[in-house]
Amino acid sequence: MADRKIILSESEMPKSWYNVAPDLPNPPSPPKHPGTGQPIGPEDLAPLFPMSLIGQEVSTDSEIPIPEPVLEAYAAYRPSPMIRATALEKALGTPAKIYYKYEGVSPAGSHKPNTAIAQAYYNKLEGTKRIATETGAGQWGSAISQVAGMFGLEVTVYMVKVSYDQKPYRKSLIETWGGTVFPSPTDRTNAGRKTLEADPNSPGSLGIAISEAVEDAATHDDTKYALGSVLNHVCLHQTIIGQEAKLQLAKVGESADVVIGCCGGGSNFAGLSFPYVRDKVAGSDVRLVAVEPTSCPTLTKGEYKYDFGDTAELTPLVEMYTLGHEFVPPAIHAGGLRYHGDSPLVSQIVHEGIAEAYAYNQLEVFEAGVQFARTEGIIPAPESTHAIKQAIVEALQAKEEGKEKTILFNLSGHGHFDMSAYDAYFAGELTAE
Amino acid sequence: MADRKIILSESEMPKSWYNVAPDLPNPPSPPKHPGTGQPIGPEDLAPLFPMSLIGQEVSTDSEIPIPEPVLEAYAAYRPSPMIRATALEKALGTPAKIYYKYEGVSPAGSHKPNTAIAQAYYNKLEGTKRIATETGAGQWGSAISQVAGMFGLEVTVYMVKVSYDQKPYRKSLIETWGGTVFPSPTDRTNAGRKTLEADPNSPGSLGIAISEAVEDAATHDDTKYALGSVLNHVCLHQTIIGQEAKLQLAKVGESADVVIGCCGGGSNFAGLSFPYVRDKVAGSDVRLVAVEPTSCPTLTKGEYKYDFGDTAELTPLVEMYTLGHEFVPPAIHAGGLRYHGDSPLVSQIVHEGIAEAYAYNQLEVFEAGVQFARTEGIIPAPESTHAIKQAIVEALQAKEEGKEKTILFNLSGHGHFDMSAYDAYFAGELTAE
Repeated sequence: MADRKIILSESEMPKSWYNVAPDLPNPPSPPKHPGTGQPIGPEDLAPLFPMSLIGQEVSTDSEIPIPEPVLEAYAAYRPSPMIRATALEKALGTPAKIYYKYEGVSPAGSHKPNTAIAQAYYNKLEGTKRIATETGAGQWGSAISQVAGMFGLEVTVYMVKVSYDQKPYRKSLIETWGGTVFPSPTDRTNAGRKTLEADPNSPGSLGIAISEAVEDAATHDDTKYALGSVLNHVCLHQTIIGQEAKLQLAKVGESADVVIGCCGGGSNFAGLSFPYVRDKVAGSDVRLVAVEPTSCPTLTKGEYKYDFGDTAELTPLVEMYTLGHEFVPPAIHAGGLRYHGDSPLVSQIVHEGIAEAYAYNQLEVFEAGVQFARTEGIIPAPESTHAIKQAIVEALQAKEEGKEKTILFNLSGHGHFDMSAYDAYFAGELTAE
Repeated sequence: MADRKIILSESEMPKSWYNVAPDLPNPPSPPKHPGTGQPIGPEDLAPLFPMSLIGQEVSTDSEIPIPEPVLEAYAAYRPSPMIRATALEKALGTPAKIYYKYEGVSPAGSHKPNTAIAQAYYNKLEGTKRIATETGAGQWGSAISQVAGMFGLEVTVYMVKVSYDQKPYRKSLIETWGGTVFPSPTDRTNAGRKTLEADPNSPGSLGIAISEAVEDAATHDDTKYALGSVLNHVCLHQTIIGQEAKLQLAKVGESADVVIGCCGGGSNFAGLSFPYVRDKVAGSDVRLVAVEPTSCPTLTKGEYKYDFGDTAELTPLVEMYTLGHEFVPPAIHAGGLRYHGDSPLVSQIVHEGIAEAYAYNQLEVFEAGVQFARTEGIIPAPESTHAIKQAIVEALQAKEEGKEKTILFNLSGHGHFDMSAYDAYFAGELTAE
């Protein structure tokens, strides 16, 4: 029998990140200052990020070498496996081959450590003592806590209060790994105190938590801010996924016809798909597909324009697909996909027709997730079920057309900390939003 | 740098299970009938188990070939990785090398699927339609639900009521994989009804749940019973772990000086250590170490004698270390190690001096587990922290003695569904029992 898993050795792990910017037909639009509306420079970002990351944010190099200590930390769980979904294929009766890249093998259970490790490394290198960050559902907060501890950094996480209360085990993870977590809004920052004054029972929001973390970093010399998606350097770090995937498919003599990732801030989709952009721009037929929830349809129904990254209008203005920075998405279970905007680079490739985007509702994606769990075994994160849904749609289309097709999707994480979402699905409590 | 992970390809996966029985200096004692006290025969077990498993229970063959469909199902997550704990070694400042075999990569998150898959396969082959089983903390119930579904079998799980209420997400897992789960005692069996008559609010126990599952299987022609540990055929199926481990260490030119596993019913310790018994009996210096909780000290303080496997005195009598079949261990968080008895084969190798046993309390093992999580990243299951504790003890001893030493332990599962236990540890709610 053919191997179900395609494994790379550590020595086969890519040694550089792939920067998509120089391969794009048009140069990326510059971020603009929230006050002046003028393009911002590195000095504007210096209070928040180490210079090496600011350099990566605007780099025009195609390849950026991965430092040795980052490669060593990656080696705790990378290269991640690629698995052929033979049981799912059989259940669907499709002639298509379905492969998935499984990022849930990291200790934190998602793709987030790929950038958390890099960010922790550069911060340590440049003398940062503490990282302040926000987290919604807790995936990012737990990932940065796990790896920053390994690099000897302290971590302060501002966790959206409603999630802090609803997802106590993400908080437990952060603490087990040595991070400190506060339910946001807190009384530790002006932004938090202001919010609490207006509403002492505020449930918090990602926008408020971002403001708190940014303020914490900006007001402490030894502290920097870290973001888990959206930014160019975050997408850059995730390209290890797609580079590995190409090597793995080549090992079995395959190449992808369609490449699928779920899309919230965009880093997981970027990680798998960006390494295919060069092929696509050079004329390859490969299709790149981003999948989002119908309840937060940034790419499928948003407007492509300059907008703020946060509710409080503190971040730079970036050109992206956006639902408006005051848009508050419903409390769906795929918390990682609830963002009004999107990565500027991902937005650009969708805008320029290099990538496609589709949206599905909660019932559709959980049905797909349960079918996946019952065939392939792994319980997918609610975010990842969006990619699974699209893979199933593509596989059934191949069946209808009687065509062979190689489908690749990113299983960005497991759902071990999201079982209450599955309970709600089985209890019939989810609506088609 | 040397690879941190030692990976085997699917083609290197062992093709047979290793049966320790013929290598033991003395033949295993036969199980005896609970009524007559006479040795039991295959026909006594036929209502509960398929004949192929009964054959494996008493086999004297050294190697038992693994059927092709079982190998295929194993390939979803096997061979499991072996990882060198370089970060933990560094934190301990030890000259010892610490390697761990990580069984948490299975979809169910523990070593349990290694036998669940085999049991599901043989049951399907012999016409079983449904499997009835019990589960305490839920590890076994979720593992059998996951794989039995893949083989087209139905699963009915009797889950100890107090766990059903306290660990709702294990129940969610069972349901997501298509199993049916009832809080035991139920009104579906005589054993359950009898218990409920005596105490309508009974919290249940593993003993009662076993009785319910056995009765369910014995009274339905299309239904068999399945057990997740203790029995010879269960330990047999787990020997894939130790066989892989030997191949992996050989790849880096190493061999283990000490082999460690936590021990409840015994199958996880057996899985790693049994393939070393042949070497040990032939004169090797390798040490085999079973680790248990001080609150349920079967191997370290129990008596070696014939005893029942369950509270209700329905199972055959087996010779083993036992605390007495009426012993009720305190409700520690390592639920998988709360068993009054132990695998007869594991008991025998401890009794005959082939293996050693140590016990640690909850505070000691959680301290070790947190140190592991903060260095190696993976959150260990509370059961597995017992093996980690022993590995740390061995590594610190090597440091004190200034000796090199190669330590191998079984990280039998992750703790993603046990975060409440970590919360209790950090909150200071655990006592040294």
